[in-house]
Amino acid sequence: MTDPKKPRLLRALAGETLERPPIWLMRQAGRSLPEYRALRSRAKDFIAFCHNPEMAAEATLQPMRRFPLDAAIVFADILLIPGALGQKVWFEVGEGPRLGELPDIARMAGEVEASTGRLSAIGETLERVRAELEPERALIGFAGAPWTVATYMIEGRGSDRSGARTYAYENPEKLDALLAVLVDATARYLVMQAKSGAQALKLFESWAEGLAEDVFERVVVGPHKAIVEKVRAAGVTTPFIGFPRGAGALVENYARSVPVEGVALDTQASAELGRRIQGQGKTIQGALDNLLLRAGGPAMDARVDGLLAQWGGGPYIFNLGHGVMPDTPVEHIARLVERVTGKPVRAVA
Amino acid sequence: MTDPKKPRLLRALAGETLERPPIWLMRQAGRSLPEYRALRSRAKDFIAFCHNPEMAAEATLQPMRRFPLDAAIVFADILLIPGALGQKVWFEVGEGPRLGELPDIARMAGEVEASTGRLSAIGETLERVRAELEPERALIGFAGAPWTVATYMIEGRGSDRSGARTYAYENPEKLDALLAVLVDATARYLVMQAKSGAQALKLFESWAEGLAEDVFERVVVGPHKAIVEKVRAAGVTTPFIGFPRGAGALVENYARSVPVEGVALDTQASAELGRRIQGQGKTIQGALDNLLLRAGGPAMDARVDGLLAQWGGGPYIFNLGHGVMPDTPVEHIARLVERVTGKPVRAVA
Repeated sequence: MTDPKKPRLLRALAGETLERPPIWLMRQAGRSLPEYRALRSRAKDFIAFCHNPEMAAEATLQPMRRFPLDAAIVFADILLIPGALGQKVWFEVGEGPRLGELPDIARMAGEVEASTGRLSAIGETLERVRAELEPERALIGFAGAPWTVATYMIEGRGSDRSGARTYAYENPEKLDALLAVLVDATARYLVMQAKSGAQALKLFESWAEGLAEDVFERVVVGPHKAIVEKVRAAGVTTPFIGFPRGAGALVENYARSVPVEGVALDTQASAELGRRIQGQGKTIQGALDNLLLRAGGPAMDARVDGLLAQWGGGPYIFNLGHGVMPDTPVEHIARLVERVTGKPVRAVA
Repeated sequence: MTDPKKPRLLRALAGETLERPPIWLMRQAGRSLPEYRALRSRAKDFIAFCHNPEMAAEATLQPMRRFPLDAAIVFADILLIPGALGQKVWFEVGEGPRLGELPDIARMAGEVEASTGRLSAIGETLERVRAELEPERALIGFAGAPWTVATYMIEGRGSDRSGARTYAYENPEKLDALLAVLVDATARYLVMQAKSGAQALKLFESWAEGLAEDVFERVVVGPHKAIVEKVRAAGVTTPFIGFPRGAGALVENYARSVPVEGVALDTQASAELGRRIQGQGKTIQGALDNLLLRAGGPAMDARVDGLLAQWGGGPYIFNLGHGVMPDTPVEHIARLVERVTGKPVRAVA
C-alpha cells in the first residue's frame, strides 16, 4: 500500500484501487468558468495568455478553488510546440487555431534544443501552481502528441485530418522526419515540466480517430513509446497518462505497446474495453460524455454511478471522455464532483 | 458447402471462407466515375435522380461494366426515408444535404405505411438492375440506419452530431418515438427492396461514432435488432450487413446483439477486432482506407495484401472502410480490383 498522504491521482496511477477514484476534468479550467472569461479578457491573445505564468497559473487554480478536484492541469495549449519550433501559430476568434506555412523539417530539427527554452514560461506556471496547491492535490503537465500536432502543422488549422492522412501516405519519409522532430521536442518539454513540478504527464492524441491499424502503429504508438522512453532515459520517473482519443479498439494495441501508467478512454469506450486495459496492468481514466455533463440532471447521475460501478473495481481516475464544453452550467460540474467525491460543493465561488 | 454458382458475396455472407473474398466498394457508383458525372448532369436534382429508376439503374450498373466487382449496390440515398415521411430534403450543391423542420413525430408515425409506396421507384431500380446483372454478381439493397437518419432529421444537415446527442439526453422520449417510426419505415422499405430483387441488405449507421456505450445500445443496437427482426417476421430471409461506422470497440457489442449475417468494419478496425467478430460467427467486411485508395501505389498494394492475410482465413468481404472519394483516380480502383480478384481490369471503360 502506498502512502495515504500521497495525492489520490498518483496513488491511482501507481495501480491502487481506491475506495473512491480521484476526479479531474479535461478543460476544467477555461471558458465554462465566468472567472476565467474575466481573466482571459485581460490578455491580448490566447498564445500570449498561455505564455504568461501569472495568468496561466491563475487559470489553472480557478477550478481548484471552486471544486474539490483531485488534480490541477497546467493551463497551456497543444500548439505551443510548433510555435517554439518556428511555425507561426495564432487563434482566430470563434474559429480556432491557424498556422503559417510548415517550416523546413531539417531546419526545425535544428531548433529542438532551443524550443524547450522558448517554453520556459510553462515551467514557471507549474512552479507557481505547485507552490499554491495543497500537497494532497496533484499537478499534471501535458503536451499534444506528435501526430495530432503534425495534423495542425500540415493542414494549418483544425480539420478532418484527411489532408494529414493523405500526407502520411504520399510523403511517408517527410512525415516520419516531422514526427521524429516532434518526439524529441515533446520529450524535452515534458522533462522540463516534470522538473518544474508536474507530478503526472499527459499526452493528448486528440486526433487518433480514423487511422488504419498500420498507420496508427506508425504515427501514434511508435512516437508515444519513443517519448516515454526518452523521458525515462533523462531520469524522470513521473507517471504518464496517454490519451489516444478516437482510437476505438486500437486502444488495446496502444495499452499493450506504450509504457504509460494510465490510459485515458474517450466517450465511446465500452465497459469491457476498460476492464481489458485494467487487465493489462494499466490505470484507466474517463469517460463521461461531455454533452451529458452539459445536459446534467438524473440521467447524468445514473451514468456517473454506472461508470463508478463498471470500472471502480480496478485502478481508475474519473474524468470526461472529452473536454468540458464552454456552455456547461457550473452547477452541473458541481453536482458531478459532489457525486464522485462525496464532498459538498458550493456551486458558486 | 453451398452452391458454387451462388454469387460469391452470398456465399461469404452464408459463412463460407472463400479462396478469394468477394469485393465491392462503398460508393463504387458515383462521382469518381466520369460516366456517372455525365449521367448525373442530365437530372435536375439529386433526389429526383435517386427517384428515377432508369437513371439510378444506369448509375448502379456503371461500375459493374468497368470493374469485375462481385456485387452491385442500388444507387439511392440514406435520406430518402425522411422525404417519404414528409420532411423536406434537398441538396445544396457543394455543401450536402439540407432538411426542413422536423415534422410532428406522431404525424410521421401515421405516414409509415404510405412511405414505402413513395419509395417504389427504388424497387423499380432494383428490378431493372437485377434483370441486367449477371447471375453470379449479387445485388445489394440498403437503408440509412435510424440513428444516423435521425441526426440529419434533428440537425437539418450533416453535422458533428452534438445536437442530436444532446437531443438524446434532453428529449429521450421524443428521440425514442422518432427512432421507432424510423425502425418501422426502414423495415418496410427493406422488405420491399428484398421483394424487388435485393439479395443482401445493408444498414448504414454512418454516425455511430462518439456515442457512450449506454446510448449506443439504445440508439444503434436496439433499432438495428428491431429492424432485422421485423424483416424476418415478414418472411424475408435476405442476409443483412450492418455497418456501425466509428463504433470502435462497441462493434463487439453490436456483433453480439444484432442478428446480422455480416458486420462491416471501418478504417480503424484492428486485425484482432475483425477476427473476434469472425469468432462470433459473423462475416466481416472492410476496411481499406479510402484515402489510401486515392493515394494508390505500392503502399496500397501492401495494405491490400495485409488485409487479405489478416482476415482471409475466415468469412470475409473485401471493401473500403468508408466510401470512394470523388477525386479517386479510376486507375487506382482498377488496380485494387485486379489485385483482389486476380482478373485483369481495363482501367478505361
